Amino acid sequence: MAHDLLKGKKGIIFGALNDLSIAWKVAEKAHEQGAQFVLSNTESAIRLGEVNALAEKTGSRVIGADASDVADLEKLFKETMNHFDGKIDFILHSIGMSLNVRKKRPYDDLDYNYMMKSIDISAISFHKMLQTARKLDAINEWGSVIALTYVAAQRTFYGYNEMAEAKAMLESTARSFGYIYGRDKKIRVNTISQSPTLTTAGKGIKGIDDLFDFSERMSPLGNASAEDCADYCVVMFSDLTRKVTMQNLYNDGGFSNVGMSWKAMQVYSKSLEELHKEEGRIVD
Amino acid sequence: MAHDLLKGKKGIIFGALNDLSIAWKVAEKAHEQGAQFVLSNTESAIRLGEVNALAEKTGSRVIGADASDVADLEKLFKETMNHFDGKIDFILHSIGMSLNVRKKRPYDDLDYNYMMKSIDISAISFHKMLQTARKLDAINEWGSVIALTYVAAQRTFYGYNEMAEAKAMLESTARSFGYIYGRDKKIRVNTISQSPTLTTAGKGIKGIDDLFDFSERMSPLGNASAEDCADYCVVMFSDLTRKVTMQNLYNDGGFSNVGMSWKAMQVYSKSLEELHKEEGRIVD
Amino acid sequence: MAHDLLKGKKGIIFGALNDLSIAWKVAEKAHEQGAQFVLSNTESAIRLGEVNALAEKTGSRVIGADASDVADLEKLFKETMNHFDGKIDFILHSIGMSLNVRKKRPYDDLDYNYMMKSIDISAISFHKMLQTARKLDAINEWGSVIALTYVAAQRTFYGYNEMAEAKAMLESTARSFGYIYGRDKKIRVNTISQSPTLTTAGKGIKGIDDLFDFSERMSPLGNASAEDCADYCVVMFSDLTRKVTMQNLYNDGGFSNVGMSWKAMQVYSKSLEELHKEEGRIVD
Amino acid sequence: MAHDLLKGKKGIIFGALNDLSIAWKVAEKAHEQGAQFVLSNTESAIRLGEVNALAEKTGSRVIGADASDVADLEKLFKETMNHFDGKIDFILHSIGMSLNVRKKRPYDDLDYNYMMKSIDISAISFHKMLQTARKLDAINEWGSVIALTYVAAQRTFYGYNEMAEAKAMLESTARSFGYIYGRDKKIRVNTISQSPTLTTAGKGIKGIDDLFDFSERMSPLGNASAEDCADYCVVMFSDLTRKVTMQNLYNDGGFSNVGMSWKAMQVYSKSLEELHKEEGRIVD
Repeated sequence: MAHDLLKGKKGIIFGALNDLSIAWKVAEKAHEQGAQFVLSNTESAIRLGEVNALAEKTGSRVIGADASDVADLEKLFKETMNHFDGKIDFILHSIGMSLNVRKKRPYDDLDYNYMMKSIDISAISFHKMLQTARKLDAINEWGSVIALTYVAAQRTFYGYNEMAEAKAMLESTARSFGYIYGRDKKIRVNTISQSPTLTTAGKGIKGIDDLFDFSERMSPLGNASAEDCADYCVVMFSDLTRKVTMQNLYNDGGFSNVGMSWKAMQVYSKSLEELHKEEGRIVD
Repeated sequence: MAHDLLKGKKGIIFGALNDLSIAWKVAEKAHEQGAQFVLSNTESAIRLGEVNALAEKTGSRVIGADASDVADLEKLFKETMNHFDGKIDFILHSIGMSLNVRKKRPYDDLDYNYMMKSIDISAISFHKMLQTARKLDAINEWGSVIALTYVAAQRTFYGYNEMAEAKAMLESTARSFGYIYGRDKKIRVNTISQSPTLTTAGKGIKGIDDLFDFSERMSPLGNASAEDCADYCVVMFSDLTRKVTMQNLYNDGGFSNVGMSWKAMQVYSKSLEELHKEEGRIVD
Repeated sequence: MAHDLLKGKKGIIFGALNDLSIAWKVAEKAHEQGAQFVLSNTESAIRLGEVNALAEKTGSRVIGADASDVADLEKLFKETMNHFDGKIDFILHSIGMSLNVRKKRPYDDLDYNYMMKSIDISAISFHKMLQTARKLDAINEWGSVIALTYVAAQRTFYGYNEMAEAKAMLESTARSFGYIYGRDKKIRVNTISQSPTLTTAGKGIKGIDDLFDFSERMSPLGNASAEDCADYCVVMFSDLTRKVTMQNLYNDGGFSNVGMSWKAMQVYSKSLEELHKEEGRIVD
Repeated sequence: MAHDLLKGKKGIIFGALNDLSIAWKVAEKAHEQGAQFVLSNTESAIRLGEVNALAEKTGSRVIGADASDVADLEKLFKETMNHFDGKIDFILHSIGMSLNVRKKRPYDDLDYNYMMKSIDISAISFHKMLQTARKLDAINEWGSVIALTYVAAQRTFYGYNEMAEAKAMLESTARSFGYIYGRDKKIRVNTISQSPTLTTAGKGIKGIDDLFDFSERMSPLGNASAEDCADYCVVMFSDLTRKVTMQNLYNDGGFSNVGMSWKAMQVYSKSLEELHKEEGRIVD
């Protein structure tokens, strides 16, 4: 549904790889609502993914940038402002990567060089983006910046590993920079905490299928999809949420506030019954 | 700005008294976005306030109901469904009243009959509304229910008195009923935690002016106005936030996540300086 | 282990029924640490339970009181101060009861008279206790008051029903009264959020066995027992936690901050595998 | 007061510089309660500070280590186990430093090399400590690990700068490692969120005096002192809190749960009155 909610608004969308990406859906929905934007990702992601097809479809320009490299970000913001002949109104940060997860290092055997890199890519990149934008005065008043996160920043999910720390830092950055950017330039900064999503990155997480099922049955409305997330991003970029800032917003079908659902318990109990028969007792 | 965000949607808006009311602004904005609705309030509020003028302006019907009276609610929902010849899509609960505050009973000298009444009017009314809607199957799938609340449910504000407990209960009800209503009917239930607002009710709170100023200077974007809140309600009633449920959403310019701002500290420090001179020391 | 942590301290312990009760364990541990106290419960609980045996064992006096009855509370506090010839130092509130749960009314078919009663017994009783103590100036400076609660105040557990609202209100009361009692009398008020515990009351909760197992496997240290809770109460009554107030303290083996554990997932996945075979797909 | 709460327990205390340090008070109180421990800090802090005097007073050994250097930590843990001829029972992490604050870089002009270093010293050091202990199997079952933090991890305090991110990451690490260490070895990991404290490090924070005053008047029990914090650490190291893990525990006189106190508002309002006279209006 098009409502022209973002008519006249310009932005930068980071992190679209292919049509499974949340950033891809955000681009489609933002385009549908009248926004113009630059798509950005690392050069290798641009090569490996299909972002150029998305650019064509949405009439966007692709500008490569490593979001952990300040010089790249400066170049990106300058080119973007040139391209639009003016400031932008919104940014999406959909970037995250754990080297320790990739290298199968468990959380009690982390490589600290990897960790530093994961933190840099997944969290400090957000600060770099904001600081670069601030220095170049790249965002209009009442602009809106969103980063995507996961509830593992609040609660431990086994296997999520160092990304928990990265997301905790990312969310803290939204608060800290949101305070300054709001006070000085009326720009809001928020994070959206999204259901587990079967993106190319999401699919890489150990045990994601079972977690996805658990999350689905725990959430009264089921897991939020990439499209749902894109809708929420549109809303947060629009002028209808101007005083919402420094928040972590759950787009998760209710998961974050469920302790135990009937549906999830049915699955759990079924298995428990079997265990009882085998073990003769409940907890050992 | 009209975007037809609520085109075809029907609802009930509780709590509009006069044009200072948040519910009043919600009605105006919802109307602007294409919604139709019934306005409801107690009979005495309808008499004392100006809700009929609002009804005329927005082409709405006014149906009196005491939201703490289940029979009244049943009548209201039935008449509303009759009026629209079908189910509704959204409800706003903007209702709160503290008898102990009104009667100037401090928090350590509460009258418990008053307290029960305050809780009934301000919190249990929300459960009654939801349970009545549920029993009458009055809300369409993917419908949306919002209640307004305040950050005093999380942190103590001197003078807010028993309303802290009422709001804590209200927010808990949004979670508990949101779980059931989401699971069974795909209906979402959320609360919006709004900045202090100088409504007729808000103005009655002791020391509200100074608190309003403190809140304004603490919030990087300043206090959210009744209009800002109405925009957020529109967004939450729309189809763009379908998977957001059981949440407490801060619409407060950032207040909830600020520990101390530079602006508020300037005011505080100025006075502190005077105190130093008078007392010769900081803390006693 | 006796450390004389509560030597010279006097208190009132509400809610001991039999040796499964948390309050029972608190009494035993507090006695071990040198405290003296009055045991209180309703007259019928005293008759039905074994509190007199506990009184004998701990050299305590039993004074019946309905904690939702202010006159009873006044009598209790006065008699207690008489008994000890002075003020007290600590209170334990371990009281909770849901009439709607007892009468098997589901959350979307609540009886509101029952609900009012449940709230009165489970939450407002705590305010009544604090207000009565405050008016009678019954607690020494640096005294400590604890109420027991459950994480359902933050997240929905199916079947916990209206007790979620009662606990949310109880925790809010700890903050609101904690502010006043701290400011005026240096008395701290906290809640301890305890693992599911197989007390006589706990055993009555629908599906408690399976929930207990889930909670056990989710918590890295396993569920906290009634004894563990009693240890924590001792600590909170002692002079070693003097500046901790208005807090909700989780005594739950880590449950509250786990999103998904390896152990719980093993049980869940086992059943899921079966479902796969049967249904041919994961989520429906 | 000595209660032999830590009798027989051994540990490592990081971060004592001089008698203003919280770690110094923890050492004194732990000693008083029967604990033995190794004191550790960087070589330069040992040289500049007075930790050797503390060691003498408490019969402890001092072992220098840079907590951000894994090799140093390995050496420290091995020497400590040698010294005690066995495993330890507790660790205190009281370490934090912001290079950007030191170099007066504001939050929107951070140097990222400094930031990496601040994060490494203040947050990743905690992971390094835990991982090293885990690999060397250095902690006994039911051991307890504490790190000190500040409420700026949850809410923005102007001037606290990148330390907000460091503390957010530190608290996340307590959850993530607490899950693993609890599950595998029954060891608990928590953070204590302490009032602003006028330590040598604390005194260096911009505007700390006024913030200290604000915090004091906001907290119903006043700010918690270093001694109060040490008492809480003792409690958390003792066997009385065995099932408390993955938590962030506020030791702050109630500050974290106060939105506005009467005492703080008196100061604020006084100044506001002056502003009114000068400006003729409240908010601009």
